[in-house]
Amino acid sequence: MLFFTQCFGAVLDLIHLRFQHYKAKRVFSAAGQLVCVVNPTHSLKYAPTRCAAVQASTEQGILPPCHHHEVVHDPQLVPCTCPLFSCPWEGHLEVVVSHLRQTHRINILQGAEIVFLATDMHLPAPTDWIIMHSCLGHQFLLVLRKQEKYEGHPQFFATMMLIGTPTQADNFTYRLELNRNQRRLKWEATPRSILECVDSVISDGDCLVLNTSLAQLFSDNGSLAIGIAITTSKVHSSEAEM
Amino acid sequence: MLFFTQCFGAVLDLIHLRFQHYKAKRVFSAAGQLVCVVNPTHSLKYAPTRCAAVQASTEQGILPPCHHHEVVHDPQLVPCTCPLFSCPWEGHLEVVVSHLRQTHRINILQGAEIVFLATDMHLPAPTDWIIMHSCLGHQFLLVLRKQEKYEGHPQFFATMMLIGTPTQADNFTYRLELNRNQRRLKWEATPRSILECVDSVISDGDCLVLNTSLAQLFSDNGSLAIGIAITTSKVHSSEAEM
Repeated sequence: MLFFTQCFGAVLDLIHLRFQHYKAKRVFSAAGQLVCVVNPTHSLKYAPTRCAAVQASTEQGILPPCHHHEVVHDPQLVPCTCPLFSCPWEGHLEVVVSHLRQTHRINILQGAEIVFLATDMHLPAPTDWIIMHSCLGHQFLLVLRKQEKYEGHPQFFATMMLIGTPTQADNFTYRLELNRNQRRLKWEATPRSILECVDSVISDGDCLVLNTSLAQLFSDNGSLAIGIAITTSKVHSSEAEM
Repeated sequence: MLFFTQCFGAVLDLIHLRFQHYKAKRVFSAAGQLVCVVNPTHSLKYAPTRCAAVQASTEQGILPPCHHHEVVHDPQLVPCTCPLFSCPWEGHLEVVVSHLRQTHRINILQGAEIVFLATDMHLPAPTDWIIMHSCLGHQFLLVLRKQEKYEGHPQFFATMMLIGTPTQADNFTYRLELNRNQRRLKWEATPRSILECVDSVISDGDCLVLNTSLAQLFSDNGSLAIGIAITTSKVHSSEAEM
């Protein structure tokens, strides 16, 4: 009996996910776009000032002394960049992706344009929604974080990091787009390198920032659909002139 | 001697404004776009909860009892909608524009696409930057407000209101765009009617919201250039399907 109840529950879950997937597709109305349902993870190591200062001198693949590592013995090794857990792992930049997949079970998706459907937006801060995105020969980490920068006022922060060096990151532009209730919000920027801390990007506010009220306007039944696109960057024509 | 000093000051001001205008034009690189330099005004009547509740029942052109008016005697009359001053004026919707121009010296600009260049972003909250925008046969009020929703953490809120009824407002879409430092932020929405309170739109957060750090990234020498475009609204294709 218990078996049948569990089976029934699993079927219901599948129908629900399929329905959410269908809704997200309709919101972005882009045939062929991959929709990824991302469940939240309560951050186990959250500390807002973990990365006090991130230097730009990370070009050689050496992470500055943020995260939980006091000393990186081998300059070729980088600590685990998963923003969720205090993880003692360190390894070469090339194997960060497989570590994140295998140890932290972070999904990886293929495609230039995908829809990231974050569920259970109502969960209390701090909460993270994370996926990896494989595109244009590189892997990116998308982090959506619910965090209380001002006590009692949670906000949502979304950013994209390249699993690569800052110089490699400069070759790309990422776009995050919300579209619902006759409102549209687009954020376009150069991804930051995973060698910089995701925490410092978020505490600097150099990312897409949503107040709770705006997040509610864009969400549907507690899920927030974010359209993601990555392109190779052309310096904005206006900037080039300056 | 004093006369010559003043003349020299005026010439310097003109050169400075011309320079700002030129910079804003380059940022948006749209030949023929009108750039309007908007100076800040310290709000004299700021009270965050001035409009406790705004009803949607304002279709007949009757402002709900927010603002400073206890009773609107004639249902055809609307109080002054200037968000800056406590003004005892009331009149028909059709003459609100001339009242705002003449009494409150709010500039009006023509053109489907303009650049709003708000100066002196560093001034303490509460501060407003306001212009009217004449376009597609209607007049709109653009309000950029610096306000401390959370004490000690000023934010910038930008919204566009139609000087007309909510039904008329539904026919338009406005877009606000920031573009600088390889970052781009776009907000698109249906303008709200001036018969709803601008204060409630801002306190609901249903507008473009910028944290101070992001505003600094987008500003240049203390000025923030916002590209504005108004179009007649087509229901977003994705929404239409739903």
